[in-house]
Amino acid sequence: MAIYLDNAATTPMDPAIIAGLADRQARWFANPASTHPLGREAGKALERARARLAAQLGGQPDQVVFTGGGTEALGLAMLGLGGRSPGRVALSAVEHSCVREAAHRLVERFGWALDVIPVDAEGRVTAQALEQVLTPAHKLVAVMLANNEVGTVNDVEALARLARERAPRAKFVVDAVQAFGKVPVDVGRLGVDALALTAHKIHGPKGIGALWTRAPFEPVFRGGGQERGLRGGTQSAPLAWALAEAAARAPADAPRITALRDALVAQIQAQVPRARLVGAPIGPERLGHNAYLLFPGLTSDHLLNALAAEGLCASAGSACRKGQFSGTLTAMGRRADEGAFLRLSTGRFTTDEDVARGARIVGQAVQMLGGVHP
Amino acid sequence: MAIYLDNAATTPMDPAIIAGLADRQARWFANPASTHPLGREAGKALERARARLAAQLGGQPDQVVFTGGGTEALGLAMLGLGGRSPGRVALSAVEHSCVREAAHRLVERFGWALDVIPVDAEGRVTAQALEQVLTPAHKLVAVMLANNEVGTVNDVEALARLARERAPRAKFVVDAVQAFGKVPVDVGRLGVDALALTAHKIHGPKGIGALWTRAPFEPVFRGGGQERGLRGGTQSAPLAWALAEAAARAPADAPRITALRDALVAQIQAQVPRARLVGAPIGPERLGHNAYLLFPGLTSDHLLNALAAEGLCASAGSACRKGQFSGTLTAMGRRADEGAFLRLSTGRFTTDEDVARGARIVGQAVQMLGGVHP
Repeated sequence: MAIYLDNAATTPMDPAIIAGLADRQARWFANPASTHPLGREAGKALERARARLAAQLGGQPDQVVFTGGGTEALGLAMLGLGGRSPGRVALSAVEHSCVREAAHRLVERFGWALDVIPVDAEGRVTAQALEQVLTPAHKLVAVMLANNEVGTVNDVEALARLARERAPRAKFVVDAVQAFGKVPVDVGRLGVDALALTAHKIHGPKGIGALWTRAPFEPVFRGGGQERGLRGGTQSAPLAWALAEAAARAPADAPRITALRDALVAQIQAQVPRARLVGAPIGPERLGHNAYLLFPGLTSDHLLNALAAEGLCASAGSACRKGQFSGTLTAMGRRADEGAFLRLSTGRFTTDEDVARGARIVGQAVQMLGGVHP
Repeated sequence: MAIYLDNAATTPMDPAIIAGLADRQARWFANPASTHPLGREAGKALERARARLAAQLGGQPDQVVFTGGGTEALGLAMLGLGGRSPGRVALSAVEHSCVREAAHRLVERFGWALDVIPVDAEGRVTAQALEQVLTPAHKLVAVMLANNEVGTVNDVEALARLARERAPRAKFVVDAVQAFGKVPVDVGRLGVDALALTAHKIHGPKGIGALWTRAPFEPVFRGGGQERGLRGGTQSAPLAWALAEAAARAPADAPRITALRDALVAQIQAQVPRARLVGAPIGPERLGHNAYLLFPGLTSDHLLNALAAEGLCASAGSACRKGQFSGTLTAMGRRADEGAFLRLSTGRFTTDEDVARGARIVGQAVQMLGGVHP
């Protein structure tokens, strides 16, 4: 029986959302763009989901565009918000690969200039670092709300305020894919221009995400004019419901998920005293589900293989970058030869027993691999 | 109780696919890019779905890219297959708006030149029309396998052969979104470069489609390198399964769906003798689920409203173009003042009773609106 401690990569779907989605797939199958009775019913359901999600973000319904997921939402923001004429784009050194790839497309395809905002040793974008990079020429800035690998939370509210001063023309894009549902998100308070999220990180289905934005953007696939002309493609009212429902269910769990993470870290450190937490200390500047640990003297591959052999599902970093040393860790000044880096992440369906067994498996694997000398 | 005769807009999900999807959402929740046991299981399921779909298309698994739907699949093909330097693109006058919008993006954003291939009075792209438009300068040609509104099937095999002669550099893109599952599709026999399809037109879920292509293309959202770097975003093994399963189930139903359509047309014409079929005659050049009828002396809006009031779900054309007279009909030389245009389309869950009741409702509505004088 596998122990799943990789909720940062993706989450098990909530059975209530699986059942609710199946029920709604039967009832709301019609095309929300159709004007007949079943189409109107699906259309109303779609708009209810949009309004519900917008309210949870502190935004307006007509600022929410449903997408196929977080990558598409961030791609739309990065490619569409900066306008047609090339400019400068600044992004933090630890952005998800989908944001970096979109920025590279701006550079290679559309002639933009790219600046990278360094992070500190805990993976944080500081006001000083942002201040040194931003200029009035910047048209686009991307800083994630929390890092997907080490879980460090940025003070986006302060950074966005600073960006408005230093780069008044810049649109501020926030990847909230990993953070949404774990830390409060209020787009008004954050003072940003665009924010992306996805359902599958909060026990919803894969295949639906959303972009909130208060700024006009140029769509990539206009299609049949769906989503106010901003994202073509027949909309799925059931998937939109699942995203809004997953979002509504997420905050209540956060304290329990954090307590499980705390117990996991404590139990591992009790067995492997030299295991060190990488990133921000446990507290408000670290996502509550994230434990990112360094085991000196081991290698990530050996450790992960040993854990997998015992049925423990974990990762060395982003599932999207397998086979490469993490760009996030590199930006934080870490090196692959420091040891094995291990990301463990708890979720709604993590049990105390999972934590206890997971910690034991980690302790035994480290002992077997012989890497951490007391 | 609504009667659903709008299967060309979208289809009710097959209950077996709803149940199978729910089951797989519980089992294959892990990230297919994760290297741990649950990730590998999800990854294998994803690749099984890819291989299964590829086999149904007569293609290879590594030629199939899963997307969020047909619009994205066609957008990727149109924007990515032609290369970076601008060229000429030719598309039929009756392509779906998502293909036209993508072509307009090539023109407006990337400096391409656009040629439109006219269609005949039945909505067909003839060899003569293609021959007159294509030149060696064309880098991209788009002709749909069958039209989504009137259901006319093009002889894509012959058109693609002609395109290889007249425009040897051109990539031939086929929108098979409406046709797939209704007519046999073999990419090798068709001799095309790219073909797009979607699950929700064949009783699968919304939110998943696929692009088959044998040609290299430039991705739009590279993301975390998923789908061989061609389409970023965490993949959904359950949705991929649902697409492959829907595709596998589709062909067996086609004769029954066609017989229902034939009965529907016959029963409507028995009640309204002057109702005329628009598009290709019933037979191999018309999709088996499509009835597209003209009722002289009425207007589409009045007729649709009268049908909706009786619970009959139908449409005047594409659900993606509500409020405008159909571009497809315009290209076929039809005019809005000819009467009411009505698309009725049958599907797997259409019953004989639906057909009989639907035809009666149409007959009564036409009589009530008083438009068709015998």
